Amino acid sequence: MSQPTFETLLYAVEDGVATITLNRPDKLNAFTARMMKELIEVFDITDADDAVKVVIVTGAGRAFCAGADLSSGGATFDRTSPQALEREEGKVGDVYRDGGGRVTLRIYDSLKPVIAAVNGPAVGVGATMQLAMDIRLASEDAKFGFVFARRGITPEACSSWFLPRLVGLQTALEWCYTGRVFPATEARERGFVRSLHAPEDLLPAARALAREIADNAAPVSVALTRQLLWRMAGADHPMEAHKADSRAIQSRGASGDAKEGVTSFLEKRAPVYPNRVSTDLPDIWPEWEPRQFR
Amino acid sequence: MSQPTFETLLYAVEDGVATITLNRPDKLNAFTARMMKELIEVFDITDADDAVKVVIVTGAGRAFCAGADLSSGGATFDRTSPQALEREEGKVGDVYRDGGGRVTLRIYDSLKPVIAAVNGPAVGVGATMQLAMDIRLASEDAKFGFVFARRGITPEACSSWFLPRLVGLQTALEWCYTGRVFPATEARERGFVRSLHAPEDLLPAARALAREIADNAAPVSVALTRQLLWRMAGADHPMEAHKADSRAIQSRGASGDAKEGVTSFLEKRAPVYPNRVSTDLPDIWPEWEPRQFR
Amino acid sequence: MSQPTFETLLYAVEDGVATITLNRPDKLNAFTARMMKELIEVFDITDADDAVKVVIVTGAGRAFCAGADLSSGGATFDRTSPQALEREEGKVGDVYRDGGGRVTLRIYDSLKPVIAAVNGPAVGVGATMQLAMDIRLASEDAKFGFVFARRGITPEACSSWFLPRLVGLQTALEWCYTGRVFPATEARERGFVRSLHAPEDLLPAARALAREIADNAAPVSVALTRQLLWRMAGADHPMEAHKADSRAIQSRGASGDAKEGVTSFLEKRAPVYPNRVSTDLPDIWPEWEPRQFR
Repeated sequence: MSQPTFETLLYAVEDGVATITLNRPDKLNAFTARMMKELIEVFDITDADDAVKVVIVTGAGRAFCAGADLSSGGATFDRTSPQALEREEGKVGDVYRDGGGRVTLRIYDSLKPVIAAVNGPAVGVGATMQLAMDIRLASEDAKFGFVFARRGITPEACSSWFLPRLVGLQTALEWCYTGRVFPATEARERGFVRSLHAPEDLLPAARALAREIADNAAPVSVALTRQLLWRMAGADHPMEAHKADSRAIQSRGASGDAKEGVTSFLEKRAPVYPNRVSTDLPDIWPEWEPRQFR
Repeated sequence: MSQPTFETLLYAVEDGVATITLNRPDKLNAFTARMMKELIEVFDITDADDAVKVVIVTGAGRAFCAGADLSSGGATFDRTSPQALEREEGKVGDVYRDGGGRVTLRIYDSLKPVIAAVNGPAVGVGATMQLAMDIRLASEDAKFGFVFARRGITPEACSSWFLPRLVGLQTALEWCYTGRVFPATEARERGFVRSLHAPEDLLPAARALAREIADNAAPVSVALTRQLLWRMAGADHPMEAHKADSRAIQSRGASGDAKEGVTSFLEKRAPVYPNRVSTDLPDIWPEWEPRQFR
Repeated sequence: MSQPTFETLLYAVEDGVATITLNRPDKLNAFTARMMKELIEVFDITDADDAVKVVIVTGAGRAFCAGADLSSGGATFDRTSPQALEREEGKVGDVYRDGGGRVTLRIYDSLKPVIAAVNGPAVGVGATMQLAMDIRLASEDAKFGFVFARRGITPEACSSWFLPRLVGLQTALEWCYTGRVFPATEARERGFVRSLHAPEDLLPAARALAREIADNAAPVSVALTRQLLWRMAGADHPMEAHKADSRAIQSRGASGDAKEGVTSFLEKRAPVYPNRVSTDLPDIWPEWEPRQFR
């Protein structure tokens, strides 16, 4: 597969790991409508490419993402401004669709694990775009801020659904009410970030974790695991999980992957899984309907 | 607005911060039907008053709230007792409505952030009334107890919905099964309390946090943030958040608050937000129906 | 009540505490279809026996449970194998029911608190069977592993519903993606395990916690508490809790248990509760329908 190119992102796949780099370093990787569309597009690519086992997202230069580009000043968030018209393909009837939410909903549906390697400041949508990623590693130099209330707007990118599930309501509310920018240590203490690293160790640590997954786990198992855990985070009763589990176990238990998984374990050797996400993903959600915006 | 007066509460508004003080100090602020009604009433007042940006709840004297007033002895929780008849306005058909739950459901709907400053023992409904508050600060002298099973009754005030979302199921179950009274340090370690303070530092710390919100955040943004995070805590899919987010961003993005929020940030000055909760709160939940008790 | 006997379990009741011991020590207590059926059966017994106030689950020998018995090699998880036919009573139409999920759903409905005393390695279903237990204590020698993706299958036993509610999505995803086996210290740090103990102190600690519940809490209150907290973990709005709470408070408030609970507290003596789970459990869920597998 030829390497796709983007205006706001760098994209590279190496040894099973795709690295997406937010790439507007002279603007601290500020988020634009173009970046929104390219982020949605790049997750379509990682999902479709069986050579991609794990995805890492990081930022070029000294920031992860400084949030919305404020170069339009007080009109930045006005969806009747010329800048906003550019984003209007997301408009439905007379309601706009929030661009950050379009990104996090796309990541929510990713078939590959997503690791955030937060190399520097992550503010506004730079913080909220991480919420649908699975695991967050951060540089000791990183900072975070859910600054929306200080800009006269509101948390977006479905953060009201994601953030309390990651750090609890008490912390989520304090971060969103105060809008303060806080250091990586606080993000670690409250459970938002999984681990902190010296700046030069961040990407190696993210890659080591990606390798641990790519080298050991069956890709179809991983894709199903991702769907199971995210979808069941909102389910009312464990029976919903039991239905999907049972179908998954029945399908995967009889698969070549299960034979190889057990055999390689008993033989104490590295597994070579035969199945592929693109062709072997079973439908364990016959009743699951894609959610429509309206 | 003239200061309202209550029998069981003190109420004062100063510089944007309302302080509600449970005020039966000779009874360790034990909870009564009168206190229930006054707590519901006072949150109607804070919601309606644009001068109130943040609410602090604390207790007079050495306790926060010792729980139900046990002066009726073994008949305390008998809803056929004379004392209980006083509460009967909450009766629906042949089922009583739990008074603690009427309070927490009212706080759940608050349009202003609610900070608990837990100055001393908080037991039974004294602990559970805090569950719908946003952020809990505690004195090192505070104690907590979900003692219901030791009194032969059950956790109330919707605590089965709130408590596991705040501290996880494992801790919630242990606290409710054992009914033990435990120190503030345990409440802090398990994430129930955000921070501990020397007794004389508690209210100053609560006020400093209130100030950080009141001085920086747009009140309409804060009111929407509160609704978004609490309501989405129970939603099944992030698309529900995306619908509400998108309406909120569209509405607030074009508002005077957003212009002032971005402009004041770029000009590095304190914001002066023009919008008010009483008049400018958009309806971002056209499909949300108030929940009825039945 | 005569002591029931099992092929794969030991069962003993002493002074209000039932201890269930997984008992295939020469196989590291590996999980079999027989063990699945016996675990379901034993929780029917503990629910029905008023002499049982609390349940402890532990393992015989050096392991808690090593997971599925892999003696069938690559065919272990193939539900068309002869071994699998043994489990087929769980088959519905053309879909199998996952055995681990049948166990966790049974424990989810338990009327008695369930304490896991994890004495050694707990891998695969040996880890996931604990998810519907209430409180996990572990030996410092314990190890845990959600190894499914390394065997080419998927997390089962409704773990996608349970695990993120216990440790958060970030940790749950990392454990399930990597499939790594990790030490008890990591399980403690991430909140999966409540406390660690020297091997010889584990069962005494579990029994001390069981005693604290059995000696102080009214059994009917405990049974209602268990249903309230687990069921509300998936509810969308606290009003659902308020409905059940109100019925529970009305019923239990007028009970002999409440009179005894308050009176014994005021008299500073141990309570002697008159009510029994087998005969006095009120229906606080008139609208709750048992979930059917389909």
